[in-house]
Amino acid sequence: MHLPGTAAPPIAFAGSPIDRADHIRVDPAALGNLMNWRARVMNLDGLLPEFDEQGRLLWHTIADVPEDTELVFLGMMDDKAHFAPVPAEGASGPAMPRAWQVMQMLQPEDLAIYGGARSLVDWHARHRFCANCGAPTKPAKGGWQRNCEGCGAQHFPRTDPVTIMLVEHEDKLLLGRQPRFPPRMYSALAGFVEPGETIEEAVAREIHEEAGVRVRDVRYIASQPWPFPSQLMIGCTSVADDPELTIDETELDDARWFTRAELEEARAAGEHGTDLLYFPRPFAIAHHLIAWWLDR
Amino acid sequence: MHLPGTAAPPIAFAGSPIDRADHIRVDPAALGNLMNWRARVMNLDGLLPEFDEQGRLLWHTIADVPEDTELVFLGMMDDKAHFAPVPAEGASGPAMPRAWQVMQMLQPEDLAIYGGARSLVDWHARHRFCANCGAPTKPAKGGWQRNCEGCGAQHFPRTDPVTIMLVEHEDKLLLGRQPRFPPRMYSALAGFVEPGETIEEAVAREIHEEAGVRVRDVRYIASQPWPFPSQLMIGCTSVADDPELTIDETELDDARWFTRAELEEARAAGEHGTDLLYFPRPFAIAHHLIAWWLDR
Ligand SMILES: [Zn+2]
Ligand SMILES: [Zn+2]
Repeated sequence: MHLPGTAAPPIAFAGSPIDRADHIRVDPAALGNLMNWRARVMNLDGLLPEFDEQGRLLWHTIADVPEDTELVFLGMMDDKAHFAPVPAEGASGPAMPRAWQVMQMLQPEDLAIYGGARSLVDWHARHRFCANCGAPTKPAKGGWQRNCEGCGAQHFPRTDPVTIMLVEHEDKLLLGRQPRFPPRMYSALAGFVEPGETIEEAVAREIHEEAGVRVRDVRYIASQPWPFPSQLMIGCTSVADDPELTIDETELDDARWFTRAELEEARAAGEHGTDLLYFPRPFAIAHHLIAWWLDR
Repeated sequence: MHLPGTAAPPIAFAGSPIDRADHIRVDPAALGNLMNWRARVMNLDGLLPEFDEQGRLLWHTIADVPEDTELVFLGMMDDKAHFAPVPAEGASGPAMPRAWQVMQMLQPEDLAIYGGARSLVDWHARHRFCANCGAPTKPAKGGWQRNCEGCGAQHFPRTDPVTIMLVEHEDKLLLGRQPRFPPRMYSALAGFVEPGETIEEAVAREIHEEAGVRVRDVRYIASQPWPFPSQLMIGCTSVADDPELTIDETELDDARWFTRAELEEARAAGEHGTDLLYFPRPFAIAHHLIAWWLDR
């Protein structure tokens, strides 16, 4: 998906060409029939993919993987069933340097296939037990569910909605930096949607918590799946009448208003940024949101 | 929140007046100080609220609840800390008859407070063990986290994004009925956002899976927190060029196109509906989406 009116690349991790074929998940016989010599199994080293010089994912056959490997059914592509293997261990937290390399090197469609698969196999690796009773769980429905053998509870892969938002005031945008960001890197403020609030309420609450700013006119712009570990980034824009900042220093190193000229200059400077600002990378939805605001 | 241009009531479960005061969650001393005689504890019978004849929630003091009760910090209101007690058992699945009564009887602000609290305490009741290793977990950060005593994993309350969408074709809307719906009840199609897809991709996939229809021009309209058990309903609209239906009978009893006149008539008929259609109840975001489409 491209955002209208921007010259930005497609949104990273979106646009997977796989047909999820959900009717096959619930049909164990059909699923069994598809696990044949034609099936493809993603070549993963833990949670990281193997790929060729063209940035194309590498795939095994089922015969290549140990027989007791837990396989998740990703869907159908080129008339072949595609699977991903659950690793011994999962990971939580932000993307690590190797994952940033993967984002730069994989073709967009392969990156989308990898992102969805990564979230799913990572969830399995970190959810082998029942949160309700502590007993072991077993995968079901082609890996789109885990069932508890103790209490019978059914568990489903997680997708955590996160709002990420622009705040506009007199042709300036509010951006902030988290302590883990590289120097000069500022991005859109973001935070998890909590139980009991709408997207618009989450946006307003997060901006007030992190920067002390009240906003109005929250609008949805675009979304992105983000597989570290499994977020749905919900990109919004909003307007502030009073620009005074009160920064929550447990969440942010800094936050400030950037002028249109400062943002344009940083975007034009590309991957090296300006003395002031390192524009968010094209893989991040923040890049698209700011580009949308600059270009609209 | 009201949708612009509709006469519908506010979106149910939105508009909580509580200040979530997240800085207190991470400050055990501040939290301890707030657990005094002024604090209010929601009067819950399991997962259902007690309320008065005006539809106002009833609250206990901390002295009223057994000392070993797990309390979740909801936030600050009227200069008092508000908590909710974790019940012995949680519940999953759709809203039951008693919950529908609650939605009709509680004042909107109280319904919003209750909905957020219900999702949170229900999550605690169903997540007393670590999904990563099976060991018991303990609440932390005022009940906004559970920590594993075995492997050290941190667990956070779930919010599951669900797309719910109108499909438009030549001034008609596509609505469907799930097997559990009462007779004549049709509503907007809906489904969970899966790992690896955008909101727009989830909308298109769900409509194709459930009704065999391809859509374009997916647009976000409004969202709603839905506490059975903890969904974020993401309301969208879309357009179909080809109206031919292929219904997934494992998901839907029926789906059909309704004309504007049929929808207007059902809405005007109120809670009894017409011979053809029982319009979705005002508590459901489907009501607001269809009303928005009719009134725009
Ligand atoms: Zn169990
Ligand atoms: Zn653990």
